[in-house]
Amino acid sequence: MTAPSKVPERGFPPNEFTARTRRAQDRMAACDMAGMLLTTEPEIRYFTGFHTGFWQSPTRPWFLFLPVEGEPVAVIPEIGLPVMRRTWIEDIRSWPAPRPEDDGLSLLIELLAPLARKRRRLGVLKGPETHLRMPLGDYERLLAALPGLRIVDATPIVRALRMVKTPAEIEKIAHACAIGASAFARLPEFARPGVPLEDLFRTFRRETLARGADEVPYLAGGAGPGGYEDVISPPSRRPLAQGDILMLDLGLRWDGYFCDFDRNFAIGRAEDAARRAYDLLWRATEAGIAATRPGATCRELYRAMRAVLAEAGEGDGNIGRLGHGLGMQLTEWPSLMEGDDTVIEENMVLTLEPSLSCGGNRMMVQEENVVVGPRGARLLTPRAAPELPVIRG
Amino acid sequence: MTAPSKVPERGFPPNEFTARTRRAQDRMAACDMAGMLLTTEPEIRYFTGFHTGFWQSPTRPWFLFLPVEGEPVAVIPEIGLPVMRRTWIEDIRSWPAPRPEDDGLSLLIELLAPLARKRRRLGVLKGPETHLRMPLGDYERLLAALPGLRIVDATPIVRALRMVKTPAEIEKIAHACAIGASAFARLPEFARPGVPLEDLFRTFRRETLARGADEVPYLAGGAGPGGYEDVISPPSRRPLAQGDILMLDLGLRWDGYFCDFDRNFAIGRAEDAARRAYDLLWRATEAGIAATRPGATCRELYRAMRAVLAEAGEGDGNIGRLGHGLGMQLTEWPSLMEGDDTVIEENMVLTLEPSLSCGGNRMMVQEENVVVGPRGARLLTPRAAPELPVIRG
Repeated sequence: MTAPSKVPERGFPPNEFTARTRRAQDRMAACDMAGMLLTTEPEIRYFTGFHTGFWQSPTRPWFLFLPVEGEPVAVIPEIGLPVMRRTWIEDIRSWPAPRPEDDGLSLLIELLAPLARKRRRLGVLKGPETHLRMPLGDYERLLAALPGLRIVDATPIVRALRMVKTPAEIEKIAHACAIGASAFARLPEFARPGVPLEDLFRTFRRETLARGADEVPYLAGGAGPGGYEDVISPPSRRPLAQGDILMLDLGLRWDGYFCDFDRNFAIGRAEDAARRAYDLLWRATEAGIAATRPGATCRELYRAMRAVLAEAGEGDGNIGRLGHGLGMQLTEWPSLMEGDDTVIEENMVLTLEPSLSCGGNRMMVQEENVVVGPRGARLLTPRAAPELPVIRG
Repeated sequence: MTAPSKVPERGFPPNEFTARTRRAQDRMAACDMAGMLLTTEPEIRYFTGFHTGFWQSPTRPWFLFLPVEGEPVAVIPEIGLPVMRRTWIEDIRSWPAPRPEDDGLSLLIELLAPLARKRRRLGVLKGPETHLRMPLGDYERLLAALPGLRIVDATPIVRALRMVKTPAEIEKIAHACAIGASAFARLPEFARPGVPLEDLFRTFRRETLARGADEVPYLAGGAGPGGYEDVISPPSRRPLAQGDILMLDLGLRWDGYFCDFDRNFAIGRAEDAARRAYDLLWRATEAGIAATRPGATCRELYRAMRAVLAEAGEGDGNIGRLGHGLGMQLTEWPSLMEGDDTVIEENMVLTLEPSLSCGGNRMMVQEENVVVGPRGARLLTPRAAPELPVIRG
């Protein structure tokens, strides 16, 4: 098993987490927030380093309380104690979960009662792209037990922090991209006419692991004459056929960080229409790369790509945006679209993902990953070939 | 790539979904519920067949409204239209997501306004092991816009339905188990002293894919002298060593259904204490299998296993229960524990998962998967070896 690049260190030094915590605390102080109660995997991992695939199990809730001053408090099921004890968190409170009649609730009430008595503001994630990962009934019981708490939305704080990556985070994403790129380089060996898409996906998953991926939480794509019907399908049993356009969209993880990019191939031969669509998408991505710099807005990046696609006089496909943030999750804030005026900052990691309707129910999409440097975009993925690659059988 | 057993059909015939919907509607009618609003992946897939890995992206909310009479209504982002149109759902309403200022909200308000006007009861999942997968702020805006709606907890209805599997579901879980078993059969070839656990995990993931898994969302485990510290860790770089007890806990998916079982191995040699712990766990599982039959309670299954473990005079480890339901999720209701008096029914699929503290900070666990037949448990996993297997270097 060959790693495609120098393998970064796993994990983070403790000062990474204390710095993240301090930044959150500064922002909380600025808006008179007494603390944040976090329930979701990326947020708890972001501030603690608590890293486990056990979030697959929906049974147990997990909590992190981040006070405006002082140390974070983890309130977690006993099953997580050994893993949490390996992090920098010292105040860990636990209960023998599952215990549906009191799954952490009395511990939370005890912890938050002083805030409620002073009618302080408690931040909870309530905004776009977030959810509350605890039973809604328990959340309602918590609020009923602490009527003094004033719940406010902590999304702007967490969003601002997580959108801008640290060098160590960027290194992990870059490594995930490098692993993905080295797997894509071998795809032409597997993508032969007659191979069912399901088998191709499975072979490709194995190849990404062989190249060093920890796991492959996301692999979607499609194939069809002149384009594919959508970009989120699991693979069908349909065999690849001459004239198909094949696209695989890969979200592998390394040390908890994703890449998210795709590659297109023509099987056997490429029709002119497909070549033109590919070229348009490639040039739209170029325009997106050129537009990416600190101070630009997401809307400007969107418009730069959209201007190229407008040549075709066709729609955007059905994706709803032309790129997004990337990191601990496959997709993160912000969105490259008309309605998002987020200002691009140095060390954001973004996907540029122009898509195009090819007429009928077919579409094409291209996606690259970039990090924002002081003067502009730096590609984390090797740039896709400028002309639609043809795999000859 | 060799499949370990006859590969079942993918997907379900439409009458599977209409039957599930009818059962839910019967239960809703019995408690005067006008409908259910569902937001989570397993529930939406359960009633529609909508199957995509795109739920990895937290950006877009997805909704299914299941009325007490008539057809379900999907309210989904445009990006999901092609996949949803391939299901049996005919009433599909969509919007160009992401649109943070109105991510499906006005569509939901329009759909639910007639219920609100009549002050009807709307079911939402609020109970244990559930969460609301939409921004909490949007949920609050929905309720504020429709003050007539009376929100009630739909968890008991969904729980009762999903806990009892259909024959087609059982077939998929059985196939996932068979794939996992065939991968475990090869583990002794890879698990050699000196191999870093991280590399072993990666090789094992590749093997499960080679044997036919679609994906491996969960793989945890550990290794150490006389036991491991916990059961939810990602792998470390520590090389396997003579005298280690190695455990891998595998949650692979086939066609959206999980297996969840583990295997233990001693590396090079097994100490007497580890052999005794393994034997105790093996006999506890036997007792669990023997106790499993329609009409028994989860508490009884727990106690049957616990009685064997009590011989050791040691604690349960830190898992909190000795088994659980299994299906579209790695863990599902019910829990085999003292506090769960759920009555076992035919066609439930369960894990039996006794765990044992081995003293110090070490533990051991064993896990098998069973389906409940008319007279008792039928194993879906080949029974683990009765004595701790030793891999000799």
